[in-house]
Order: sequence, then structure tokens, then C-alpha cells
Amino acid sequence: MAGLRVRSLLVTGANRGIGLGLVQHFLKMPNPPQWVFAGCRDPKGQRAKELQNLASKHPNLVIVPLEVASPVSIKVAATTVREHVGGSGLNLLINNAGIAKITLLENETPEDMTETYTTNTVGPLLMGQAFLPLLKKAAQGSPGSGLSCSKAAIVNMSSIGGSITNPYAWEMIQASSYRCSKAALNMLTKCQSLAYKEHGIFCVALHPGWVQTDMGSSAGHTPPVTVDDSVTGMLKVLSSLSEKDTGTFLDWEGKVVPW
Amino acid sequence: MAGLRVRSLLVTGANRGIGLGLVQHFLKMPNPPQWVFAGCRDPKGQRAKELQNLASKHPNLVIVPLEVASPVSIKVAATTVREHVGGSGLNLLINNAGIAKITLLENETPEDMTETYTTNTVGPLLMGQAFLPLLKKAAQGSPGSGLSCSKAAIVNMSSIGGSITNPYAWEMIQASSYRCSKAALNMLTKCQSLAYKEHGIFCVALHPGWVQTDMGSSAGHTPPVTVDDSVTGMLKVLSSLSEKDTGTFLDWEGKVVPW
Repeated sequence: MAGLRVRSLLVTGANRGIGLGLVQHFLKMPNPPQWVFAGCRDPKGQRAKELQNLASKHPNLVIVPLEVASPVSIKVAATTVREHVGGSGLNLLINNAGIAKITLLENETPEDMTETYTTNTVGPLLMGQAFLPLLKKAAQGSPGSGLSCSKAAIVNMSSIGGSITNPYAWEMIQASSYRCSKAALNMLTKCQSLAYKEHGIFCVALHPGWVQTDMGSSAGHTPPVTVDDSVTGMLKVLSSLSEKDTGTFLDWEGKVVPW
Repeated sequence: MAGLRVRSLLVTGANRGIGLGLVQHFLKMPNPPQWVFAGCRDPKGQRAKELQNLASKHPNLVIVPLEVASPVSIKVAATTVREHVGGSGLNLLINNAGIAKITLLENETPEDMTETYTTNTVGPLLMGQAFLPLLKKAAQGSPGSGLSCSKAAIVNMSSIGGSITNPYAWEMIQASSYRCSKAALNMLTKCQSLAYKEHGIFCVALHPGWVQTDMGSSAGHTPPVTVDDSVTGMLKVLSSLSEKDTGTFLDWEGKVVPW
């Protein structure tokens, strides 16, 4: 991870699973970031216990109340982060928060479709908009001309479930509302990469693997990849990316995932 | 079009543009369908004038009030169609209704994201669910074992704007809410093709070309393809498809569009 050195980052959905794993890994780095912002819906709740413990030991960890389905919550979070980082901006925004409903196609409801899209797709769009000024600042303040994750980047946590080419484990897991939201998130990543390139911001969609988290296990099967392996892999991948990779869809081992 | 002979079909968004063109072409066939259902939001309104004129000349054309953003409206429409077709079911469902908002990424709103997704993606999902019993009936009542558009099919009107691989004319037209909804519609098409194959139902996503319609011209440019050429091309393509093509994304000339 020699290549990935950021001054500041924000991870959404950071109280458990992959989000928590990312926060832990950044805090453990030999040269940890000056600021690690951990967005979570209920920072004082029981489900944020591990995050609270970490914060008591790491003064560079700031827990930020954040509900990505709420435009107001996103704006407040952006203000909080700005107050901390000041003029140096935010290097890395990791849109990790997401929800999934495992349902047969015939039982999908408009409510589930909308709720899943709001959190998994609209949330990352609004996060990108709200943090754009801070990402721009980070890009302007970083040396070098090419795009990279160390400079200024948006990382969208997608899923192979969003690959239209490869309808992963369809026979085992139907979740069309989730799959549609992740295919749309992949498209959003491409749009962000095109719109934000001129601002010096790198954008990428990641498939973290089928990971041993609450969500990964929700279909009643045991996933093969540990949170630790997934996060270690993704951070290695992020550190290796350069301008030519913006707007792509990669897995935790660096392999290109087909749209 | 020798290959495409359907007893009944429903086209959504049929009062203008490509939807109206499809209805006109089916009515003009040497062996026209027994029933052509034309879904439109306001059948008695000024914008349905051409459809009303057609209906006065063609007793096999039934104008059906249909707002695909409304689950209730969809259910009522399915009842209306069932009352007409009886036990023979519906051969062809063309989810053509769609909306687009041309906006820079920085100006996209949660409201536009949700509204576009509701009409362009959730609508086709709910239409598939509501008309599934009628499509199944048509499949059961048709001779032959393979899937085809003449037997029972769902055709989702997508767009090259929904191709993540090829972010079509990005410099000219940004419309991320539209692009995300169409990428999601492509995923839905894949999910429908997998879920409905066992029921004998063929599913495909089509890019109609950049067509001279109100929507096609909404970015302030003149599209190169006429409605007539687009519809003629798409009907030729649909007539040529077989089981191996289910779950694919094709343009009006039959070329595969990359996801």
C-alpha cells in the first residue's frame, strides 16, 4: 500500500462489515491519514459500538452522522467534514453504504425498488455532489498531474450482482432491485468519471468479493471471502490505479468485471 | 416481417413517437393482430388525437388508460386487456413509455432520479409482473418449443444512453438520471429473461436509434433516424430473434449493443 497515502477520507456505512474493515485498515497504516471520517446512521447506537471503541483510541477518527438516503443529512455531513479538513479538502470518498433485499422477481415491490435505488444509487450521486468542492480542493492541493486515489477519488462500492454480463449466482440469489441499483451505480460511476475528470477526480466502481458480512450472508449461504482479505485486496488495488483506470469496474483482486 | 405474427400486443406510451409508430406499423401489416392495445396516460386528451383517429378506423385497436408510474393503473390496464383477449393471452408486451431529463451531473436532483427510475425501470418491472399470467397463457397456447417474439415476449425500449461501455454523446448530452435508469432497465431485462424463460417468455432490450421524436430532439439536436425507419428496423429484428437471443441488448439494425 506504499502507493495509497491520503491525508483524509470518508467511508459511508462505516459501522460494520466492509465499511468498518476499511476504517480499521486505514487507522492501522504506518502513515495513517490525518482524518478518517466514518459515516454511520446512528453514531451513538448499539450497532456503532466498535466504531465508538476505535474513536476512543484514535483521535484522527471522526464519526459523522450520515444517512445517505437523506439529502439534508448529506449536506450536514459535508459541512462537518469541511470544518475539520479546512482548505486541504478531502482526498477519498468511499461510497460504501448499501442495502439489499433478497426477493424473487415476481415479489419485487415498487417500494423496495425505490428504497434500494435511493440508498445504493441516488446516495452516491448526492455524496459526489456534496463533497465535490472538497474533492476539488484536494485535487488542486496535490502534486502531480494524473488522476489517482491518493490525490482525489470517488470509490463506489458496487457488486458483481450489478454485472449484467454475468448474472452472478442467479439460481441461488435473486435480488433484482439490488442488481438494478448496482447496474445503475456502475453507470453513475462512469458518468462521474467523465464529469469530474476535468476537476482532477478519479472514479471507480469496486466489487469487494462475496464477503463474510451481514449482507453477504443474507441469502443463507457462507461467503468465501473474509472482510480482512477483501479490504486488504481493495486497498492494494486502489493504490495501483492511475488515470487510465478511471470509470472502470474492478474486483478486490484487481480484475476487470464486465458491465 | 414474415416471422413476426402476433395475435395480440400492448405498447406503452403509444400516443406519440416510437410508440405510435409501432402501433401504426402493426395495424398496417398484411395480417394485422387481432388486438392492438395502445397504452397512454390520457386517452381522451389532445396529445392522444392521432391514436383516437386510428382507433376510429381500426376496430382491433384498443386505447388503454395507462400510467406506468402507477401500480394501480397497471393493474386496471391488465384487467382491461384480459377481458378482451380472454384465454388466448397476450403475445407481446412492448415497454416503450419513458421519460428523460437532460441535466448536467452537478444539477441532478433526487426527485429527478426517482421519477425517471420509477417510469423507466420500475414501470417495466411492474408491467412484466402484471401481464405475466397473460404472457404465460400466450406461450402455452403457441405451437413450437423455442422462445420467440411471435409466441410470448417482453420488449423493453432501452437506449444506447444506457450502455455503460459507450457513454454515447456524453459531451453533447448529459442525462445521468436517464442513463442510470436505462442501465438498470438493461439489468431488469436480463433478470426477466432468466426468471421468465421457464414460462416460455422471450425478453430483449432494444436501442431504437437516435430517433426524430420529441424526446430525441430534446437536447436541441436533430436526430438522424426517422420513426418509420426505426420501427421498421426493430420489427424486422424482433421477427428474427430466437431463444439464444433472450436477455440481449440490440439496436434497431440488429447489432448487439455492449452493456
